[in-house]
Amino acid sequence: MIELTRRATFSASHYYRNEAWSEEKNEEVFGRCARRNGHGHNYTLEVTVSGEADPVTGFVVDLKWLKDVIEDEVLADFDHRHLNLEVPEFAEKKLIPTTENIAIAAWNRLEPAVSKAGGARLSRVRVYETPEIFAEYRGEQ
Amino acid sequence: MIELTRRATFSASHYYRNEAWSEEKNEEVFGRCARRNGHGHNYTLEVTVSGEADPVTGFVVDLKWLKDVIEDEVLADFDHRHLNLEVPEFAEKKLIPTTENIAIAAWNRLEPAVSKAGGARLSRVRVYETPEIFAEYRGEQ
Amino acid sequence: MIELTRRATFSASHYYRNEAWSEEKNEEVFGRCARRNGHGHNYTLEVTVSGEADPVTGFVVDLKWLKDVIEDEVLADFDHRHLNLEVPEFAEKKLIPTTENIAIAAWNRLEPAVSKAGGARLSRVRVYETPEIFAEYRGEQ
Amino acid sequence: MIELTRRATFSASHYYRNEAWSEEKNEEVFGRCARRNGHGHNYTLEVTVSGEADPVTGFVVDLKWLKDVIEDEVLADFDHRHLNLEVPEFAEKKLIPTTENIAIAAWNRLEPAVSKAGGARLSRVRVYETPEIFAEYRGEQ
Amino acid sequence: MIELTRRATFSASHYYRNEAWSEEKNEEVFGRCARRNGHGHNYTLEVTVSGEADPVTGFVVDLKWLKDVIEDEVLADFDHRHLNLEVPEFAEKKLIPTTENIAIAAWNRLEPAVSKAGGARLSRVRVYETPEIFAEYRGEQ
Amino acid sequence: MIELTRRATFSASHYYRNEAWSEEKNEEVFGRCARRNGHGHNYTLEVTVSGEADPVTGFVVDLKWLKDVIEDEVLADFDHRHLNLEVPEFAEKKLIPTTENIAIAAWNRLEPAVSKAGGARLSRVRVYETPEIFAEYRGEQ
Repeated sequence: MIELTRRATFSASHYYRNEAWSEEKNEEVFGRCARRNGHGHNYTLEVTVSGEADPVTGFVVDLKWLKDVIEDEVLADFDHRHLNLEVPEFAEKKLIPTTENIAIAAWNRLEPAVSKAGGARLSRVRVYETPEIFAEYRGEQ
Repeated sequence: MIELTRRATFSASHYYRNEAWSEEKNEEVFGRCARRNGHGHNYTLEVTVSGEADPVTGFVVDLKWLKDVIEDEVLADFDHRHLNLEVPEFAEKKLIPTTENIAIAAWNRLEPAVSKAGGARLSRVRVYETPEIFAEYRGEQ
Repeated sequence: MIELTRRATFSASHYYRNEAWSEEKNEEVFGRCARRNGHGHNYTLEVTVSGEADPVTGFVVDLKWLKDVIEDEVLADFDHRHLNLEVPEFAEKKLIPTTENIAIAAWNRLEPAVSKAGGARLSRVRVYETPEIFAEYRGEQ
Repeated sequence: MIELTRRATFSASHYYRNEAWSEEKNEEVFGRCARRNGHGHNYTLEVTVSGEADPVTGFVVDLKWLKDVIEDEVLADFDHRHLNLEVPEFAEKKLIPTTENIAIAAWNRLEPAVSKAGGARLSRVRVYETPEIFAEYRGEQ
Repeated sequence: MIELTRRATFSASHYYRNEAWSEEKNEEVFGRCARRNGHGHNYTLEVTVSGEADPVTGFVVDLKWLKDVIEDEVLADFDHRHLNLEVPEFAEKKLIPTTENIAIAAWNRLEPAVSKAGGARLSRVRVYETPEIFAEYRGEQ
Repeated sequence: MIELTRRATFSASHYYRNEAWSEEKNEEVFGRCARRNGHGHNYTLEVTVSGEADPVTGFVVDLKWLKDVIEDEVLADFDHRHLNLEVPEFAEKKLIPTTENIAIAAWNRLEPAVSKAGGARLSRVRVYETPEIFAEYRGEQ
């Protein structure tokens, strides 16, 4: 077994707000992240799959295929979007798009596509909000 | 003469839209950057001053002072803000917050504060929108 | 379970010397790291906690709180200090502040504070001495 | 137990080709990586050993020794070489030097040298082909 | 006047050899860079244009256009190629593809395309062979 | 004319103190940088030379030669040293080793060696104290 990782980046807006709370409570809990107009980040998404290197191609998975999966399953919906307002996982469930929740959402989007392709399995998803902050999710274990 | 540079970062939202244009025209010119809800970036601001190193302290300027100037003049207004909606240079003049215009706005905020302090002059301002894209401004020359 | 990581940096001096050894023996074992006046590094400390994302806030832990814990428990004593001479773990026990021992010391300082807060547990501590060298500790297992 | 990691870099050429396939089939499977004259990368090799920090030196292993092991076992044969044509693991077995296979080859070269030295064991090998793509191998488990 | 810069990357092989010289002389002058099968790098190309920010769009040039120019004029011929054997500037003139000569070749390819478009002029081209080595060219001055 | 740059790194200790001042005055002016036992950094030194690319070799200067010059003229004295106590420019003249003064000292060491070799001239020296702070010197102009 060997792990293969590919990074991708996307730029998005978000805010941290609980609409059931007052403005004061939101500011107290979330600070400047609560501001109504939102702010944004260059996110880095790191997707790791694990499996055996194919004896003929030497690939765990084709990196071009993995790039397309990341593009189709995550970036097409997340890049140049306001996560709270436009991405279903957050918009419909009023779920706050913290780095943790973005990593879980990305896993839930990527895992079926990787599983369906066979051969390799999704091993971990890491999301950097800034170079100083990242969340890592390995699925329910 | 020697140059001294300090970097700072801020996270902000923006979009590229000309409100006098139709939605189609905005999308044609600005692509996904035109989307109404905005998107965001981790910006890096690089501020360079030039002068003589003080013979006693060895400083062109005190870096703690420079950090405070960057914080007070730029970050206090730009960080965790929507540039089009909340920052006067862009909001009031309907100026599009491209990397170029952010660099010019930062220069115009920083230059008077550096000049007033004496000793050193503002030499250049560089703004990175992503690690792959940056604008650099040296004032009107 | 999901992991959340925050990075911080500190600048410190150290040397590698065993005072029970001769100058020659110190130089033989530790090379230029043994020099009496010390040398220094910009260290990067990467602190990872694991837990469940809170269903209301979306946080494993509040990153502002984690930043304060890192500041109070580690940086307040390590930053802009000579590790061998001023930090108790090394100064009192004549323990050599290798990257490995710095990571263990940071873990031992951070673990009680994270445990006491409840909700999440300290999962790993990584210390970079340079971008090319790092140690990682996950506690006694 | 604590882990200690050292990074090294090497520059090499390679191509992805299966000589049993037609030019068309190679191009279909491997795209521009199949081109006959090869292309190249600055690879980063990250070698991690695990063990106890020696109570006297504070070392899991001497980093100078680890640097020499990486140089002697891997870089001496891989750096400034064409992997397909000059490195035995790939040249003799017609094995394609994908990032995955390079990581496995580096593990197989490093593991005996680390084991023979005693004290620490090889824990993982990570190879970056670019900052966006890396493979990680932990041996047969 | 303001400068706008965009980075791109390409992976290529090369060697440093003067075919008029003996093997010994090539090795003496160029060391391991002279090896016949070549080696490779992940190059970073940084292209800077200067001009006025357009009052309506806020652009010196459209970054999407600049990306296409870099792709069409440089990357299409340089990426995943052996510079000595496949790129005309080097192959036909037996010119050695040092970082310096790659920067000059990139300038000579980009300058007419930027000039023809009007509005901005090519200001500088920087090429990184590794993160530690780069050449910068500003045209004949 | 083209510029060629090579980076090198060194690790050193320093403090900011004026021995003619009281402890209080030192702390007031220099803050935690004034602490008596010193602290340290991983410095990055970026050395740029300019000249014509040699028509035969394609080199402005041989990078191996430039590496040796940097090693012999600067790193041999600066690396793994306490700048205030062990490096003559600072120790003998009680000059404070700020980033500015380190850049000037490096220039004054490198310039004669580059000039003596002929062909190229030293164009600029940049010193990073951290990734966020750097000084750049181009000689007396």
